[in-house]
Amino acid sequence: MRVLILGGDGYLGWPTAMRFSGKGNDVAVVDNFARRRWHEEAGTDSLTPIASLDTRIDAWREVSGKRIESYIGDISEAGFISDVVAEFQPDTIIHYGEQPSAPWSMTSVENAVTTQQSNVVGTLRLLWAMHEHTPDAHLIKLGTMGEYGTPNIDIEEGYIEIEHKGRKDTLPFPKLPGSFYHLSKVHDSHNIHFACRIWGVRATDLNQGVVYGIETPETKLDERLVTRFDYDQAFGTALNRFCVQAMIGHPLTVYGKGGQTRGTLNIVDTIQCVELTAANPADRGEMRVYNQFTESFSVAGLAEKVQHAAGQLGVPVRIDNVPNPRVEMEEHYYNPVHTKLASLGLQPTLLSETLIESVLGTIQRHKDRVIAEGIDPTTSWKGGAPVAAQPAT
Amino acid sequence: MRVLILGGDGYLGWPTAMRFSGKGNDVAVVDNFARRRWHEEAGTDSLTPIASLDTRIDAWREVSGKRIESYIGDISEAGFISDVVAEFQPDTIIHYGEQPSAPWSMTSVENAVTTQQSNVVGTLRLLWAMHEHTPDAHLIKLGTMGEYGTPNIDIEEGYIEIEHKGRKDTLPFPKLPGSFYHLSKVHDSHNIHFACRIWGVRATDLNQGVVYGIETPETKLDERLVTRFDYDQAFGTALNRFCVQAMIGHPLTVYGKGGQTRGTLNIVDTIQCVELTAANPADRGEMRVYNQFTESFSVAGLAEKVQHAAGQLGVPVRIDNVPNPRVEMEEHYYNPVHTKLASLGLQPTLLSETLIESVLGTIQRHKDRVIAEGIDPTTSWKGGAPVAAQPAT
Repeated sequence: MRVLILGGDGYLGWPTAMRFSGKGNDVAVVDNFARRRWHEEAGTDSLTPIASLDTRIDAWREVSGKRIESYIGDISEAGFISDVVAEFQPDTIIHYGEQPSAPWSMTSVENAVTTQQSNVVGTLRLLWAMHEHTPDAHLIKLGTMGEYGTPNIDIEEGYIEIEHKGRKDTLPFPKLPGSFYHLSKVHDSHNIHFACRIWGVRATDLNQGVVYGIETPETKLDERLVTRFDYDQAFGTALNRFCVQAMIGHPLTVYGKGGQTRGTLNIVDTIQCVELTAANPADRGEMRVYNQFTESFSVAGLAEKVQHAAGQLGVPVRIDNVPNPRVEMEEHYYNPVHTKLASLGLQPTLLSETLIESVLGTIQRHKDRVIAEGIDPTTSWKGGAPVAAQPAT
Repeated sequence: MRVLILGGDGYLGWPTAMRFSGKGNDVAVVDNFARRRWHEEAGTDSLTPIASLDTRIDAWREVSGKRIESYIGDISEAGFISDVVAEFQPDTIIHYGEQPSAPWSMTSVENAVTTQQSNVVGTLRLLWAMHEHTPDAHLIKLGTMGEYGTPNIDIEEGYIEIEHKGRKDTLPFPKLPGSFYHLSKVHDSHNIHFACRIWGVRATDLNQGVVYGIETPETKLDERLVTRFDYDQAFGTALNRFCVQAMIGHPLTVYGKGGQTRGTLNIVDTIQCVELTAANPADRGEMRVYNQFTESFSVAGLAEKVQHAAGQLGVPVRIDNVPNPRVEMEEHYYNPVHTKLASLGLQPTLLSETLIESVLGTIQRHKDRVIAEGIDPTTSWKGGAPVAAQPAT
């Protein structure tokens, strides 16, 4: 299989590239290093010291004997992704190549515009390129469970059968996204669905939960192969951020009441889900949607797990409920269906105390790299002055 | 009331500006003349000879004694609309300022990108500007009935109560838009809904049907005040295009079977609906959605009406079912609710033979301006070679 991975220098993209390459596929990665640049601009960084893409690719060749190709450029710019698709002729395109942070997208009008422009226009240009150059290829697009928001009904996988005034139809599940970032993914989903209906594109939209974890089998093979690990307020996800806070003696910052419940999954399951999806392509004209997560936790529940695991290692941890910088329901119904990937054979790696302790151990090794100033929220959804991370009353 | 009208040089924007100005409001229009430019590029033009915006504004002052301000610029460019909103301090913003053509958006990847970038980023910048400078203003946004597509259930006004697995919620009505243009309006609706929920913006999203007609009371006051009238394959709507075809002896080009049914309304009702909406602003944090049309017709039904009216004037007209350049259902269920504007007091001007005859008469006066080459469809939704307008077998 010829596999093109957009965002192939990223947290999930790089381990995905190694997995598909290791299994004998022809792999190329596309990246414009935007995430590295945004970190530089913010004065933050990955906890793990990550090598340059060239060094990663060289190291992978040494370790595995396999070659990963790379294309450097911005998929939202005219011509670039069209040329890449025409030249590489992928069978499968795995698209992680988007601005992935909700807080970053809420910081300013320019960040909101950059997020929607990069993500929506990038995916739009990709769809045209597939239509023109590889009409039979399968697009695997990373969406987010956050597209759905928290409606008061069970969340189905992409579509819902609605009975209304005596008639029935199966329609896209209504969305209540919670940031300009989440909105960009909703826009993508609508554009992709249209391309499937009109042009016969094959696509699978993976509405992924919050990913945690630091290692995959491939990243452990050589220190130059480690993937990034973000823990800052913009790019760090809750569990990863809590683990870093625990190890540097910072209180765990639970936003608001902490009853916000989200689907989560281990990074190794992300790779597994994407492999299962690639092995089972959508039909021509079909947009499949999978809800990609293995367990749901409340934010407060995650904090307690980290507190307990750290306690086992002799590290005392305090949990602070800080004013919520986001606008979201802090207590709500949450019961999303997620059976489709399981029925394809997903074997989940559930969140265990052992896993958290192992993450805490890795953080301990890189503790001197932690930039503590990047952790507290600086972006308020309401705009205006950022809310300082003071304990809520 | 201080009323800012985006797209105020356009088909609907200019008559709207005169109406609000005539009623004693302080009116400013914003435009970047994109529509005039797109026509120039395509070698097409308005049937009616329209004056420049400056001439229109001067003529309006002569005729009415009222002054309309103007701001020339692109709302999707950084800073522009923010400065305009900060300076003009509108109470009401009426937003027609978008690329409005489905076929134009399907012509090429660059047109698709321009459509989504102009429309989505333009509206996004407007929302931030309102949040920052006029948080209490009311946004009246022109959407389209085409956002819904043709689901097999009744189309509600923006939201639908869904009962699912024993629980209930009222959620945004699921959308099946039919072009990259229609998609841009769906994206807008999601962004606006978010701004209402998060920032407390007031908004009313008008999902408008297909507008027909050539005159409003104000456009008849002086020949320099006429509004544009498009009949070309990109910017002309079905009824307007059929009327021009009838008068130049061109067969009426019904796409496919002609069973495609759409909500329609007279241009005078557009202005009336916008006035009613402005007089009844949404609450803070509320996005109201109205389905803005007065009657539904099939495309074939419209063609027959034009054929009959032309026959009354002694003009013989042939109807051709040409291959459909679009991908759409040509026979489908269609029953959209449209009671909200009626309950605000809308008095519809329904489509009558007299109206069609009057439009045909106006076309007759400008017949020498018709550019016949611009009428047949040149853009196929499937891409590739355009489908020539040959009669379907």
